[in-house]
Amino acid sequence: MVGKPALLALDWGSTSLRAFLMDGAGAVLAERASEDGASRITGGAEAFEQALRRVAGEWLQPDLPVWACGMVGSQHGWREAPYAECPVALQELSRGAVRADGSEGLRVRIVPGVCWRSGQDGADVMRGEEIQVAGLLATQLSLAARCRIVLPGTHSKWVEVRDGRILSFRTFMTGELFAVLKQHSVLGRLMASSTTFHAEAFDEGLTRARMAAGRGLSGDLFSTRARVLLGQLQAEHSADYLSGLLVGHELAAALPATDADEPLALIGDPALCARYAHALQAFGRPAAAVAGNTAPQGLWALACA
Amino acid sequence: MVGKPALLALDWGSTSLRAFLMDGAGAVLAERASEDGASRITGGAEAFEQALRRVAGEWLQPDLPVWACGMVGSQHGWREAPYAECPVALQELSRGAVRADGSEGLRVRIVPGVCWRSGQDGADVMRGEEIQVAGLLATQLSLAARCRIVLPGTHSKWVEVRDGRILSFRTFMTGELFAVLKQHSVLGRLMASSTTFHAEAFDEGLTRARMAAGRGLSGDLFSTRARVLLGQLQAEHSADYLSGLLVGHELAAALPATDADEPLALIGDPALCARYAHALQAFGRPAAAVAGNTAPQGLWALACA
Repeated sequence: MVGKPALLALDWGSTSLRAFLMDGAGAVLAERASEDGASRITGGAEAFEQALRRVAGEWLQPDLPVWACGMVGSQHGWREAPYAECPVALQELSRGAVRADGSEGLRVRIVPGVCWRSGQDGADVMRGEEIQVAGLLATQLSLAARCRIVLPGTHSKWVEVRDGRILSFRTFMTGELFAVLKQHSVLGRLMASSTTFHAEAFDEGLTRARMAAGRGLSGDLFSTRARVLLGQLQAEHSADYLSGLLVGHELAAALPATDADEPLALIGDPALCARYAHALQAFGRPAAAVAGNTAPQGLWALACA
Repeated sequence: MVGKPALLALDWGSTSLRAFLMDGAGAVLAERASEDGASRITGGAEAFEQALRRVAGEWLQPDLPVWACGMVGSQHGWREAPYAECPVALQELSRGAVRADGSEGLRVRIVPGVCWRSGQDGADVMRGEEIQVAGLLATQLSLAARCRIVLPGTHSKWVEVRDGRILSFRTFMTGELFAVLKQHSVLGRLMASSTTFHAEAFDEGLTRARMAAGRGLSGDLFSTRARVLLGQLQAEHSADYLSGLLVGHELAAALPATDADEPLALIGDPALCARYAHALQAFGRPAAAVAGNTAPQGLWALACA
């Protein structure tokens, strides 16, 4: 039995736009994607509306609510949705949504990102990940009381959840560091273009980071090159070694801020989550849950709130 | 009184070639430079000889010894001078020099770099910095017994010296991280092209790194962006804030491996050394000595050994 469309949920990040047609029970009826990410759109509100119409087409109906999250709500997005401040209940994100109006009665709710400020040096922001968190909590209710949700990626987020609220979070630039070091640094020069994942090299980097995080990340990175020059590491494995180093330093810095019995959950790309799940296991803190893209469920929860 | 030429010393790195004509007392009589760095030369030994003849010209005389250090001795240099292994007495570098012969009786001694291997995870290499160390120790004898020499730069080196020997060393990719993050990451997008150094922003980054190094570098970098978005940092100061973060994390990781009363010395570009001297002061470990390029003195000491 196929439900009737009740919500159009838009996961609208910097580099892509994903649209999910959902029914009244929160099930995804159909999904479409385009490369019209918010950072690629120039021309203001009209250009955003056109990008939405291109991907959604006949899905757009006068009475169908449209909710969007991600960079579409940034300063340079369709319309800015100012950050909600930690601690924040996920229902509050619903109330913080701003309205972007288009032609022919089109109305889009854009939900806010979340910022964290605490004391002298607390300073962090996210846009989109908070909706992934809302989606996971909506489907795995036991986690809402207390958990740490890890969203690995370009800018990995570690989100502290207590009683259905986001208390704090931290961003680790793991994915972007890997990309810029591979493409633009001396470390990348030795990296052969290998498409096979060398688990052993990844583990070597992971172990090195786990055993001596006090040495600091910038004091560990160069070992990627030195070990190749000294014959301890094969050049074609060095990218996976570097990945292990970076993920390992992220875990070594992030895990001590969690409680030893705090459940950990992963949300994101399956291959990347598998890598993190393996790393968490190696650090003695296996993940309690792993999920793919939970943005549609998050927007659905907010639209119902 | 001007001495007679007794040595032609070549500081031949990846991107530049610097030639120093020196007398028998170790004084520099004249200096020339070119952009014929070792990584820019293709065509093998002959091309290296031509680059040397272009910069040295009439300085080259049948009886004048020529000594070179740096990437000219790497696998892709004029001729490979295999790494000497820690612990290494600086006089041993002299014995490890290899000979590159050119036309018309030209002979060049190329000194080895140094590698450090220790236990499971010790792995580091340098080429050129060990000669800077030799040069400093030749001119500041009191440091030879015990000191830590810091060579800030693209790949900062922290070199542990005991009884005139290099015991160990560590590389921090601070300078290259700054460059790739500024030019290629999301952090650089907010950085205005400002030529003025904002000491206060640098200090903010430094303090953040000093107070909470346990958070890890990759967990601190994103604050450069978040603080701008949250109005805590001006975009045009964010490059200097990032510089402070990176230098601070280097110091926070490197200083605990030193003894509290171990003298620290800086060698390198004066502006960069001034920044590091300021940072060391903030960490309560002021530098005991600061020097510019000491490569010619180092090569002179080795040629005499």
